[in-house]
Amino acid sequence: MGIPQKAIDSVNANKIGLKGPLMTPVGKGYRSLNLALRKEFDLYANVRPCKSMEGIKTLYDNVDVVTIRENTEGEYSGIEHEIVDGVVQSIKLITEEASMRVAEFAFVFAKENKRKKVTAVHKANIMRMSDGLFLRCCRDVATKYPDIKFEERYLDTVCLNMVQDPAKFDVLVMPNLYGDIMSDLCSGLVGGLGLTPSGNIGKNGALFESVHGTAPDIAGKDMANPTALLLSAIMMLRHLKLHEDAERIQNACYQVLKEGKALTGDLGGTAKCSEFTNAIISKL
Amino acid sequence: MGIPQKAIDSVNANKIGLKGPLMTPVGKGYRSLNLALRKEFDLYANVRPCKSMEGIKTLYDNVDVVTIRENTEGEYSGIEHEIVDGVVQSIKLITEEASMRVAEFAFVFAKENKRKKVTAVHKANIMRMSDGLFLRCCRDVATKYPDIKFEERYLDTVCLNMVQDPAKFDVLVMPNLYGDIMSDLCSGLVGGLGLTPSGNIGKNGALFESVHGTAPDIAGKDMANPTALLLSAIMMLRHLKLHEDAERIQNACYQVLKEGKALTGDLGGTAKCSEFTNAIISKL
Ligand SMILES: CC(C)[C@H](C(=O)O)[C@@H](O)C(=O)O
Ligand SMILES: CC(C)[C@H](C(=O)O)[C@@H](O)C(=O)O
Repeated sequence: MGIPQKAIDSVNANKIGLKGPLMTPVGKGYRSLNLALRKEFDLYANVRPCKSMEGIKTLYDNVDVVTIRENTEGEYSGIEHEIVDGVVQSIKLITEEASMRVAEFAFVFAKENKRKKVTAVHKANIMRMSDGLFLRCCRDVATKYPDIKFEERYLDTVCLNMVQDPAKFDVLVMPNLYGDIMSDLCSGLVGGLGLTPSGNIGKNGALFESVHGTAPDIAGKDMANPTALLLSAIMMLRHLKLHEDAERIQNACYQVLKEGKALTGDLGGTAKCSEFTNAIISKL
Repeated sequence: MGIPQKAIDSVNANKIGLKGPLMTPVGKGYRSLNLALRKEFDLYANVRPCKSMEGIKTLYDNVDVVTIRENTEGEYSGIEHEIVDGVVQSIKLITEEASMRVAEFAFVFAKENKRKKVTAVHKANIMRMSDGLFLRCCRDVATKYPDIKFEERYLDTVCLNMVQDPAKFDVLVMPNLYGDIMSDLCSGLVGGLGLTPSGNIGKNGALFESVHGTAPDIAGKDMANPTALLLSAIMMLRHLKLHEDAERIQNACYQVLKEGKALTGDLGGTAKCSEFTNAIISKL
């Protein structure tokens, strides 16, 4: 599948991994390596927190949302046919099993992280059976968590409300493709993929990753902004229940971003990657 | 289908219509009345311009995009099955015919409206066959319009870029569901559905509409903001090649919004709907 066996073995042995961005070779026969990894380890929940950070100037200063994306099915089923010439169908697959486990994941996540609300994002007005099933699973799970507010919203409405007033939202749970979109949208509100972490969680493993591009043009130049990867590592520590370490490193990182003295080029600074990371280390 | 026969006859006779928002009765057997109308008249292109307007304060002041949405198929095919208990598939249908005609529409629209660029929005990295077909159609049509720049972008990337720098975009063309999302997102950037018009265009007719809710709570109170409907009427005039009239009414509307003296409650003013429209009329 294009992923070194050693990497696979390591995740299998340790049940956890941290990875940088991966570029899938272009050409027939290759499917996305990122997707292949999610599949290989059945990483069914994709978690992407987006939080406004001091020192990172965007149009928004009050974003604090977490998108939880079903990570194994939906429009990503890979099942497509050409029925007759010029007529193609792609199958969006929604199962009760996958919907239940990601809904359950969302509420457990909300509870553990002291979040107040979970919003299920859907188009059950259009895809009544598939999104309808997803939504029913969310409703079912919600009844088990009376302390967490539950609401249901149309995907289009959430997009509109998110750009107008992101403070309306807290934890969001949704089918695969909607999560792909919403997580990028939310990432845009707080500074982009270079600044937002990501975790793929399964029953038998978890893989944390930065989801920005590989930027081959600056490879080896000590110029990249490692924030997304660092924040992903911090998510990994929390997953391992190493909350104190996570907190310390996160505070150091946020402080360096806030001070703005050692920012990388993409953030308008002149620091090298190593200078940025040294600044963080010196705060620890 | 729940739409008065008289309305249908009128659109059939005149090939054109203007409608306010419609509420679909909740309950089994009813599909969205809005969708029913799009279907009845085979209105294959959904056009939603979103433009920053002076006097309407949002976080953005440089939005000027038009989303062109395939309006008849994709995830809106209505074909869904429960395969076994708890396993549902919804079919996303993409045809060459529908993709070609909406791509052609987008380029003609761009040309007639002196637009510089068309962006095809897709997830052909995931739905290689269906979005792949859509994308190929866009590429094909693009070659016939060498004066209009053509680019292809992933849906998630467009969402991210749109909230960071909407000036990157001009005309966008995409499959049905993506258009549903992008048009609401863009509408959010310029003030919401109360301020953005919409047109559904087919070979044998066109229907212009405001797509915000019906707001039954303020029905009959002379409080609604008629801007979206008025801008839709202006789109209709342009469709009828009544460009001068369109321009005059649009200028009057923009001026009243800019002056800010006769705004309705939703825009922070105290004017009644009739006061707002009288202010516009007095500028004509
Ligand atoms: C690279 C691509 C296949 C992937 C996706 O569509 O899921 C990416 O956009 C993501 O969000 O991780
Ligand atoms: C009302 C609903 C069925 C409709 C859609 O999903 O297309 C609406 O969101 C729109 O954009 O016109």
